[in-house]
This record gives sequence, structure tokens and C-alpha cells, in this order.
Amino acid sequence: MDEEALKQRLADFIRRIWDEGDADAADEFVAETYTIHHDPGDRWHGMTLDLAGFKERVRTSRASFPDQKFDIQGMFANGRDIAMTWFWAATHAGDIPGFPATGKTIRMSGATVYGFDAQGRLTGHWQIVDRLGVYQQLQKNLAG
Amino acid sequence: MDEEALKQRLADFIRRIWDEGDADAADEFVAETYTIHHDPGDRWHGMTLDLAGFKERVRTSRASFPDQKFDIQGMFANGRDIAMTWFWAATHAGDIPGFPATGKTIRMSGATVYGFDAQGRLTGHWQIVDRLGVYQQLQKNLAG
Repeated sequence: MDEEALKQRLADFIRRIWDEGDADAADEFVAETYTIHHDPGDRWHGMTLDLAGFKERVRTSRASFPDQKFDIQGMFANGRDIAMTWFWAATHAGDIPGFPATGKTIRMSGATVYGFDAQGRLTGHWQIVDRLGVYQQLQKNLAG
Repeated sequence: MDEEALKQRLADFIRRIWDEGDADAADEFVAETYTIHHDPGDRWHGMTLDLAGFKERVRTSRASFPDQKFDIQGMFANGRDIAMTWFWAATHAGDIPGFPATGKTIRMSGATVYGFDAQGRLTGHWQIVDRLGVYQQLQKNLAG
């Protein structure tokens, strides 16, 4: 797959799995193992997941923010690695550690590099998220 | 300039301006205006700087961390936009608001998209930094 095909595939992956919550679509998009190479502050930072573990991560992550939606800002390629910048918004509908559900909208931005194998399956990511901004929103909601 | 030339130019910019602290090299690398399109938590978020303002930003940012060094992880291209993932380390040698200098090493990671004009001059950036991780280190140093 060339860079443009990988970008399209990444956009499809984000929509199907993260926006729409079809965790089982990982069978189609994700390699046999998926490594979270770098994701500081994330509970899966440094871990390698099999397909079942990947699906569990999707379900766990989405449980508190079931209507989450990514707004892709840009994609940038280096061979089979695609960097993506994004905004994200979701209703805080379920409890997360330290922060009971408030029903308020949480907004987030980040940048993620996704790796693909020769078959166009995702092998992992390297990610930075504005977690400080998220915590500030959660604390403000808790105080309000 | 093609993508490989822009990547080399970006690496030179990081080394000369941010690692070595030669703010005046902005005359060579930066366009007449430089826009910080997105940099949540940064005091320059959303601002457009002229060359003098850009140099002042470099000097102000580096004053507290004069031995700072970027370790570039990867570069990814989309036309004249280059995304860069990076680690960074520096000695906290000068005061910053709320955090007096401790002399301890601070580590940071981030991802930045740099835009270039047709002459290969930098026109701005879109950036996410692990600020939560930095604050956690600063608070720990303050407590220790």
C-alpha cells in the first residue's frame, strides 16, 4: 500500500474503531500484536497487546466516553509510518478513576504516529496527548 | 526544496536555535511572521510573532533550561509540512512561574508539525507536549 492508501486506511480505522466503537473491526485493521511504544500518562504505555487485548483496550477506553469523535487535522507520511494530528471531543458519560461522570463535554488534542506492516495492518503507535488540558477540564467540572 | 531537504533544514533549525541557543539564526530559518497555531498550555499559543518576537520567545524559553537538547525521533512529511516527534532533556537551571530552579534534569516528549514557505523558511507550528509529565517532575522536585 502506498502512503495515500495507508492514510485512507488510517482514517477508516479511526472512524470504525474509535468513533463508532466497533472493537471487533480490529480483526480487519490490526496486526497480531500492537505495541503502545510511547503514550505518557496512558495506562497502556509501553505494553504490547494481542488482538483480544487491543479490543479490550478499545472497549475500556470508550466506556467512559461512548460518543467520542475524532476530528483529523493532518496526516504526514514516512514510508509505512503515518503521523496524524487530531482534535477529539466526547461526553464524559462514565466514571474514570478520580472523576465520576459529569455528563459534560471534554475536548482533547493530540498527535499520534501509527505504524503499519506490509499488509497494511496496524502494528502500534507513538503518541502525545494534551493530558494536562484534559485534567484541567475534569477538575473544573468536578468543582462546578 | 523537496521533503528530504526540508527535513534536513528542520534538523539544522532545531540544533542551531533550540539546542545551541543561537536566537539570531532565526534570520536564516524563520519567515517574517511565525504563528503558533496550536500549543495548548504554552504562553504563545495562538500568537503570531515577527522575527524580533520569535527571538525573544527563544531567549525567554531557553533562559530556564540553557543546556536543553532535543533528540529527534522521527520526521514525517506532507508537502511543505513536516511533523517531528521528539524527546527533550534539560537542567532546570532558572526559575519558571511557580517553580524555582532546582538544578535537576527535566525530561519531556512531544510532537510538532512545522510549516515551511516556498523559500524553505518556517512559518509556524502545531504542537502537543506532554506538559502533565513535566509538571509531575517539577512538583516532585519541589517536594524533594
